[in-house]
Amino acid sequence: MYSVQHIVETALKEDIGPGDITTNNLVGPDRRGKGEIVAKESLLLAGLDVAKQVFVCLDPKIHFYSQYKDGNTLKDGDVALRIEGRVRDLLAGERTALNFLQHLSGIATHVRSYCDMLEGRNVRLVDTRKTTPGWLVLEKYAVRVGGAYNHRMGLYDGVLVKENHITICGGVKKAIEYIRKNVSHLAKIEVEVSDMDGVKEAIAAGAEVIMLSGMNAEQIKAAVDFVDGRAVIEASGRIKKENLMALADSGVDIISVGELTQTARWVDMTMRVSAS
Amino acid sequence: MYSVQHIVETALKEDIGPGDITTNNLVGPDRRGKGEIVAKESLLLAGLDVAKQVFVCLDPKIHFYSQYKDGNTLKDGDVALRIEGRVRDLLAGERTALNFLQHLSGIATHVRSYCDMLEGRNVRLVDTRKTTPGWLVLEKYAVRVGGAYNHRMGLYDGVLVKENHITICGGVKKAIEYIRKNVSHLAKIEVEVSDMDGVKEAIAAGAEVIMLSGMNAEQIKAAVDFVDGRAVIEASGRIKKENLMALADSGVDIISVGELTQTARWVDMTMRVSAS
Amino acid sequence: MYSVQHIVETALKEDIGPGDITTNNLVGPDRRGKGEIVAKESLLLAGLDVAKQVFVCLDPKIHFYSQYKDGNTLKDGDVALRIEGRVRDLLAGERTALNFLQHLSGIATHVRSYCDMLEGRNVRLVDTRKTTPGWLVLEKYAVRVGGAYNHRMGLYDGVLVKENHITICGGVKKAIEYIRKNVSHLAKIEVEVSDMDGVKEAIAAGAEVIMLSGMNAEQIKAAVDFVDGRAVIEASGRIKKENLMALADSGVDIISVGELTQTARWVDMTMRVSAS
Amino acid sequence: MYSVQHIVETALKEDIGPGDITTNNLVGPDRRGKGEIVAKESLLLAGLDVAKQVFVCLDPKIHFYSQYKDGNTLKDGDVALRIEGRVRDLLAGERTALNFLQHLSGIATHVRSYCDMLEGRNVRLVDTRKTTPGWLVLEKYAVRVGGAYNHRMGLYDGVLVKENHITICGGVKKAIEYIRKNVSHLAKIEVEVSDMDGVKEAIAAGAEVIMLSGMNAEQIKAAVDFVDGRAVIEASGRIKKENLMALADSGVDIISVGELTQTARWVDMTMRVSAS
Amino acid sequence: MYSVQHIVETALKEDIGPGDITTNNLVGPDRRGKGEIVAKESLLLAGLDVAKQVFVCLDPKIHFYSQYKDGNTLKDGDVALRIEGRVRDLLAGERTALNFLQHLSGIATHVRSYCDMLEGRNVRLVDTRKTTPGWLVLEKYAVRVGGAYNHRMGLYDGVLVKENHITICGGVKKAIEYIRKNVSHLAKIEVEVSDMDGVKEAIAAGAEVIMLSGMNAEQIKAAVDFVDGRAVIEASGRIKKENLMALADSGVDIISVGELTQTARWVDMTMRVSAS
Amino acid sequence: MYSVQHIVETALKEDIGPGDITTNNLVGPDRRGKGEIVAKESLLLAGLDVAKQVFVCLDPKIHFYSQYKDGNTLKDGDVALRIEGRVRDLLAGERTALNFLQHLSGIATHVRSYCDMLEGRNVRLVDTRKTTPGWLVLEKYAVRVGGAYNHRMGLYDGVLVKENHITICGGVKKAIEYIRKNVSHLAKIEVEVSDMDGVKEAIAAGAEVIMLSGMNAEQIKAAVDFVDGRAVIEASGRIKKENLMALADSGVDIISVGELTQTARWVDMTMRVSAS
Repeated sequence: MYSVQHIVETALKEDIGPGDITTNNLVGPDRRGKGEIVAKESLLLAGLDVAKQVFVCLDPKIHFYSQYKDGNTLKDGDVALRIEGRVRDLLAGERTALNFLQHLSGIATHVRSYCDMLEGRNVRLVDTRKTTPGWLVLEKYAVRVGGAYNHRMGLYDGVLVKENHITICGGVKKAIEYIRKNVSHLAKIEVEVSDMDGVKEAIAAGAEVIMLSGMNAEQIKAAVDFVDGRAVIEASGRIKKENLMALADSGVDIISVGELTQTARWVDMTMRVSAS
Repeated sequence: MYSVQHIVETALKEDIGPGDITTNNLVGPDRRGKGEIVAKESLLLAGLDVAKQVFVCLDPKIHFYSQYKDGNTLKDGDVALRIEGRVRDLLAGERTALNFLQHLSGIATHVRSYCDMLEGRNVRLVDTRKTTPGWLVLEKYAVRVGGAYNHRMGLYDGVLVKENHITICGGVKKAIEYIRKNVSHLAKIEVEVSDMDGVKEAIAAGAEVIMLSGMNAEQIKAAVDFVDGRAVIEASGRIKKENLMALADSGVDIISVGELTQTARWVDMTMRVSAS
Repeated sequence: MYSVQHIVETALKEDIGPGDITTNNLVGPDRRGKGEIVAKESLLLAGLDVAKQVFVCLDPKIHFYSQYKDGNTLKDGDVALRIEGRVRDLLAGERTALNFLQHLSGIATHVRSYCDMLEGRNVRLVDTRKTTPGWLVLEKYAVRVGGAYNHRMGLYDGVLVKENHITICGGVKKAIEYIRKNVSHLAKIEVEVSDMDGVKEAIAAGAEVIMLSGMNAEQIKAAVDFVDGRAVIEASGRIKKENLMALADSGVDIISVGELTQTARWVDMTMRVSAS
Repeated sequence: MYSVQHIVETALKEDIGPGDITTNNLVGPDRRGKGEIVAKESLLLAGLDVAKQVFVCLDPKIHFYSQYKDGNTLKDGDVALRIEGRVRDLLAGERTALNFLQHLSGIATHVRSYCDMLEGRNVRLVDTRKTTPGWLVLEKYAVRVGGAYNHRMGLYDGVLVKENHITICGGVKKAIEYIRKNVSHLAKIEVEVSDMDGVKEAIAAGAEVIMLSGMNAEQIKAAVDFVDGRAVIEASGRIKKENLMALADSGVDIISVGELTQTARWVDMTMRVSAS
Repeated sequence: MYSVQHIVETALKEDIGPGDITTNNLVGPDRRGKGEIVAKESLLLAGLDVAKQVFVCLDPKIHFYSQYKDGNTLKDGDVALRIEGRVRDLLAGERTALNFLQHLSGIATHVRSYCDMLEGRNVRLVDTRKTTPGWLVLEKYAVRVGGAYNHRMGLYDGVLVKENHITICGGVKKAIEYIRKNVSHLAKIEVEVSDMDGVKEAIAAGAEVIMLSGMNAEQIKAAVDFVDGRAVIEASGRIKKENLMALADSGVDIISVGELTQTARWVDMTMRVSAS
Repeated sequence: MYSVQHIVETALKEDIGPGDITTNNLVGPDRRGKGEIVAKESLLLAGLDVAKQVFVCLDPKIHFYSQYKDGNTLKDGDVALRIEGRVRDLLAGERTALNFLQHLSGIATHVRSYCDMLEGRNVRLVDTRKTTPGWLVLEKYAVRVGGAYNHRMGLYDGVLVKENHITICGGVKKAIEYIRKNVSHLAKIEVEVSDMDGVKEAIAAGAEVIMLSGMNAEQIKAAVDFVDGRAVIEASGRIKKENLMALADSGVDIISVGELTQTARWVDMTMRVSAS
């Protein structure tokens, strides 16, 4: 919750600064009114509490009404949120609240379209660390709303020995042995490899999760057969909807997709404000 | 500069938290190395100083080498930035620096493609307030790098009487007269209208800038003819590349495009790290 | 509102630090009482909400009673605000609340005396950026309470090409042409000149507002005649009550006075506290 | 030093916000130049380090040259400080640096005029807690530069049993006995009284410092005679230059004057900037 | 109160970070429950409000029930605090709340055992500045709960001329004379000496408090006799329960003991949580 | 590093506040000198960089000399750190630097004594979350310096299903099955049990780590035999030096000891300061 309040305050400050010179010079401070945030296309809702927090920052006693919650599907014209309060606060928060909702619902809607493709498959779709700086927690939340899972949250809560590490340490075996001595007993060790030799080395060294990076479906299938349950297998690297199902068919346990957060476009929403 | 340092620190904290458990358990604290941030496709560079700031936060004495600056065009394989420092810092900052660069260069590249279309036209392309919350200053910077202009930065530095204001105030005339009495003598008054009646009312009330919202090219042309230089004219609302040139031909002074920041995709970049 | 809360918390921290060692060692934590903030001379009230915020910081549930609001005139003996709460909070906030009220009401009272002189004249009295650092928003608010207007709030929301800029850019014409190409279409361009040559150059270059700096009433009148409505005219520089009316008679649109915030003395107020 | 950095950053943020739109649109980011802060009247300098800190915040590597330090007397035309750096930084910091210097030097100059009157007398001139909120540390510093002493810094570092405390506690004797049991063994107990009965009660209860509040010179002299060295005596309340010397002659040890910080006017200073 | 909120937020952030991955993956966000914080041994309670603040930070509307307050004695099995709220908040705050309570009650219990030894003696037991960094205010509070007094809170609210100062200043006499000229008239001057010569010098120079450092009971008794009421006398340095009573018998006014905060062990407490 | 700077600044602020009134009134601001931090007993050094950071906060250009680093053993009289700078900074930072060093070295020394007992055994000694609030990162660092390992850093980086979770979820099986579906593929699942039935249930449900809580050595040995390598086994609960070796002999993989951070006493160190 801390990070939500922090980013909401930052966003309001950068947009409002010392004051909304249009509204403050047009509308009296006590004038009250209503606002409606409306979907302008079909979408999967995410970020409702963040949007509320925008207005709460402006007036802790503002009122909200909504029949939806995050994870619900809205169609064009559905009213995501009604707000009742001072007109000044409604207009000052309008753009910021929409920016949060459109961006987060955009990601959730995008993720859902991937999840729909994988429906019924025994594979876990996960995100990456390719998130907008400052938005890590919120974007990873939207991924979960969309139905996918988070890979590690950051560098602090999961071990992933990547290509750069292996080069620096002098090989998969050395790297895994070294880190096992030092790391918490609660962490599984994941290692990134890009060919069958890497897979064999990882298995030999006792890696608990293997990331197959940039391998094609055929190569991945061979790796899955070789590993045969001795480690969890994750496919990664330039995965798009076009090649998603081939990977899902290959028998991997996990597919990680940077596009979930990188290419989601904002969904269309608007806000109508009227004075009482 | 304040906001850059703030967002960079926020981004590093959310990703690194109490520490990179992979690297810290693999690589000694004093091991030094080199990193190269490389373009993986043709792009317009934006955010170089932000990327540097990421590493400076981790080590104020880190070294950089680059033959480029923001606004330069890079092609696949060009090295945007070389960094020399502790391996731990290179790996801890890698993903965050890339996330900044890929997002900002993505916007600049996207904006540039719009500007190229308008080359030679006497019309100013501007952004909107549809920016990622927390990123307002950075995204508006990337828009300028791409060759377009900023509309107002926020609610505090420009008057824009929008549809909601007009409804609440009881008409264009009342709104303009009221705000003129109160607002700073340094501000021009812009008013949003959606048809020719609105344009006439705005001119009669002395608006200095008129935003034509959601009007088609033909309607806009008629408005331009009617106004005949008595006010600056801005076209706005659901403008995409498909209808951009028709608007440019209509004689408006300014075209504002939310898509500049809303639909830009990340460009592809990567970072290679090696130990000394 | 953000800045108010920030400055109030800063002020309380610097005065109270780790605790009021007199009161905390004399009065039990649960003892309740009443406080009255009283005017000790005739004054124009400004800062009532800031004074309340001081006590709210100490106890969010404290009670207030007042028949006045900012902009009201109080005479010696009038009770600006009654507070009911814990005696410790009343005594801890007393001095800080008074310091805010006396300083802000001092400015409002001072400004009002200027406005009274200009009553019925068609000229706008504005402040400058000569405000106490950290108090910019509050002092500019007190100026408005006193009946005058704000010039730009800061460097970010208004263009003012000053003498230093002109020297550096190589003349009025060059400066105006250059900035017009770059600056937002919502900003009017104001330029500072100090003689009739400057006025002519500014008009020729299309300045929308001209600041006449350090010119006497006669020179100003000539400038007004020459400009003849082609630009807004502001008189500025070492303006005091002695020369205010001569300037008002000269036909300028705006008079800016640094003395509004620089020489206002604190009005006299006190606080009486009694235990229940 | 913490508080200085904090208030300087706050001041720059409120004035500059997201950027100086005049200078940034007129002067290139790499253009270098020189600035001179000049006294426009005779004054006692205070705040030189604060002014420097303003520019250091904008560029940590900026250069300064000055032949003066706080406490020096400057006459009209003397250059208090020369700065060499980027023109943008010089112009962005100009007004804020001047506002600090003019306000602090104003207090120091004002205080010095009181000290000059008391020259040769064996009496200590002290300030009060009537300081601009947020400026407590800086204004109390300027008081010392001017040659006077600080009373307690805030509520946390000195015991002063005031009229409100005495009323609430039921008398001077009770209050002093009660606080002596609880307060640190390093604190002297000062008590405020307004007549000879109060003085007698304070002495009987063992007060170590007695504040005579609102008593005239004759009454004070009688009190001094009665106390006869058994306690330190401070005169306080509505003291101005008119009655200062009469109090100094009365034999009190300390005179506290709220006017030191409340009525000081800004001294006149300006800054000239030129490009290299 | 500020510092309490600050340290509580810091503590929660470092433990919870972006979320409790065990509880959040096991218990739904709306599930409600009860918690009981229970003493597992006899102890003197301190920190109840801090523990509450932990849960308030997680949910401002959480409910508390307790029949105790700080300073009460609890025995094994007594329920210090009952909490009713969301299970997630109870489990997220559990460890942090206990850590505060166990540490602060540990100090209070430890201090009380010293005070019990001194019962009926006319000597004041005080703490030192040997407190856990960041915890100064809280640990000094726990000392008061335990029945002892605080020496100065920090370097800002009490004068203590220590051995290092005396060496640097060139003797007790010089140091005292110099500081008396500069320091506030509300401060008593305490000086640290380690033998009878120091005591004599301190008395001659007019020290108001003398700290006898590292002297044995016999030497201290001689010093007390010599001073004979002309100054307050404090015994200090390596004082433990073993030599406490001998010092108490020596006639000193104050005994300062670093062990009060340095060697206190945590008392044993636990928290039971059940879902509704 | 962030948290170190933060806690150091917090600690300095609470101790120094607006200034060291003893030193500032005794020693000129430019006087330079030397300080030596000296061990007064045999100890394992931890916190050297934190101590340096204390002085760096006061003067970024201060000088240090030390022949030791964290993890070295010092004996009575060894000089841990020499500092050269302004006397005012040396005296202002003295107590805070010592408090950090004595507390952290105290933990490291205490932990080392446990590790020495376990020398040659194939068992990993780990800490708990029973750390001083605000000090989590530093105390866990001192544990590593002492030669032991960290259990999870906080609630965010390791799964530990504790007794309270099991009660709320309705049994070990349900809890493990539920969390496995939701939690990251990089996390091992640890579950706390207190008897052999719990162990069997945990193994059946596929727990990867089992914490045996409050079981005696004999019971633990039986559990180890039963598990026979199918899970990592951790012994926990009221472990002291008295029963440590019996547990080490039982064949468990990990022993977690709250006493490592809870009962460590400060080691004795002092600082000598002299002026140049």
